[in-house]
Amino acid sequence: MRLTGKEVVAAMKEDLLARVDQLKAKNGRPPKLAIVRVGEREDDLSYERGATRRMESVGVAVEVFAFPADVAQEELENCINQINNDEEINGCLLFSPLPDHLEEDRIRNILSAEKDIDGITDESMAGVYNLSGRGFSPCTPEACIKILDHYGYDLKGKRVTIVGRSLVVGKPLAMLVLARHGTVTVCHTRTVDLKERVKEAEIVFVAAGQAEMLGPDYFSEGQVVVDVGIHVNDEGNLVGDVRQEEVEPIVAALTPVPGGVGTVTTSVLVQHVVEAAERVLEKA
Amino acid sequence: MRLTGKEVVAAMKEDLLARVDQLKAKNGRPPKLAIVRVGEREDDLSYERGATRRMESVGVAVEVFAFPADVAQEELENCINQINNDEEINGCLLFSPLPDHLEEDRIRNILSAEKDIDGITDESMAGVYNLSGRGFSPCTPEACIKILDHYGYDLKGKRVTIVGRSLVVGKPLAMLVLARHGTVTVCHTRTVDLKERVKEAEIVFVAAGQAEMLGPDYFSEGQVVVDVGIHVNDEGNLVGDVRQEEVEPIVAALTPVPGGVGTVTTSVLVQHVVEAAERVLEKA
Repeated sequence: MRLTGKEVVAAMKEDLLARVDQLKAKNGRPPKLAIVRVGEREDDLSYERGATRRMESVGVAVEVFAFPADVAQEELENCINQINNDEEINGCLLFSPLPDHLEEDRIRNILSAEKDIDGITDESMAGVYNLSGRGFSPCTPEACIKILDHYGYDLKGKRVTIVGRSLVVGKPLAMLVLARHGTVTVCHTRTVDLKERVKEAEIVFVAAGQAEMLGPDYFSEGQVVVDVGIHVNDEGNLVGDVRQEEVEPIVAALTPVPGGVGTVTTSVLVQHVVEAAERVLEKA
Repeated sequence: MRLTGKEVVAAMKEDLLARVDQLKAKNGRPPKLAIVRVGEREDDLSYERGATRRMESVGVAVEVFAFPADVAQEELENCINQINNDEEINGCLLFSPLPDHLEEDRIRNILSAEKDIDGITDESMAGVYNLSGRGFSPCTPEACIKILDHYGYDLKGKRVTIVGRSLVVGKPLAMLVLARHGTVTVCHTRTVDLKERVKEAEIVFVAAGQAEMLGPDYFSEGQVVVDVGIHVNDEGNLVGDVRQEEVEPIVAALTPVPGGVGTVTTSVLVQHVVEAAERVLEKA
């Protein structure tokens, strides 16, 4: 079975449209995302276009704060502070990595956790770890969980293997799996016998960051596989961390690349902006 | 083999004595720990006595801030702020849980991460999670790693199972194991087939919080087992989460209870105070 993102995105859209309508009615204006971009990296521009389209499709406003690649630290800090203080802005997406002359660690932690819809601040990270409810999880791991939710796969008591331990996917995903009562194993480049660790799991999340790294010999019957990777191969096609064509016939279910996790990630970003706006109302 | 804490504590003491001497020479005064206690709970008083003795044995000063059980939120907050601002105090140990009328979440996060030698603030938790180097890990999981270090067990590439997912032991331990490149599996009350998950690991940390829960059927030859539990049984004896007498003959190495992790935990607390004082000097 192919766990396509499209279906998840459609269900989320319906829910988000209704919530945005409610917010508009209560606030007299739509929720709003600020995008802070330094330079003109093609990856950033492409993500910006996609995110903007998805935001607008449910009525969330977007304001872009674009800076030249040589922007001064202070100017960028001022921008984040301004966003923190702007009541009309509910969330902020800051593209990273920032150019080398900037103190990224300092800049990201200036952002208020309340507006940190991409989970980049220490406060959001603490929240993912200690379940304080402050800030937000990074979007990609949450998208992975959303897909399983949508297709009715429960994590409770399941053996879950995660390949990758990055701060944007592997680690937060491990925390989300634990919060849903899965038994989680985190593997990485130093893992001995990775094949066995993947094969023995019931649910596998692959965020290895290496194109088509895991072939059919890593998988077994009945598994549910979420492929987080997205790469451009030599032929110019998008591929995942999993050799999709060879693995799909073996396992019970697999998220495709493209059209899987990535698609849902953008919708989670929208959901976070909406949620941030809702939290403001709840507090008032 | 019995991995006794005593030997680890002795080695740490030697190191800490030298470091305290250096700090005294540079600062003209010893590092100092503030203990903040609300009420007179026997557990707190006993830990306070033990910690004070251990601090003084290497020349670290201790100041106790004791409050009645009905202390007002504001008074306690003022105390933490005062500790934050007191240059002579390097670390603060705040006993918890606090009485119900106090907002513990607010109080613990007032403490500066620089003085949070017990890892209770969000900033310390983020640090354990994202390796930012800010704040400190809780002492117990670090004591577990210290013991393995001392006896020469390397975690790199090892299969490590942790039983327990609490914020004071299981989760931070998982982060410390990942940082040392172990392949980590986190188990908990919802884990199906816990026995197998424990049996198949090379290194097992048991922090289940249940007296003598794991018997010999959970273990296999060659394993290294760290027993974090400490309970008083019906006969008034101290016991761990592992049925020590039955398990010891099976595995390659086991930390005893008492005399294992608990003993080392107090030394880690001392080490954190010393480290906090050293960090102040490095920054200056």
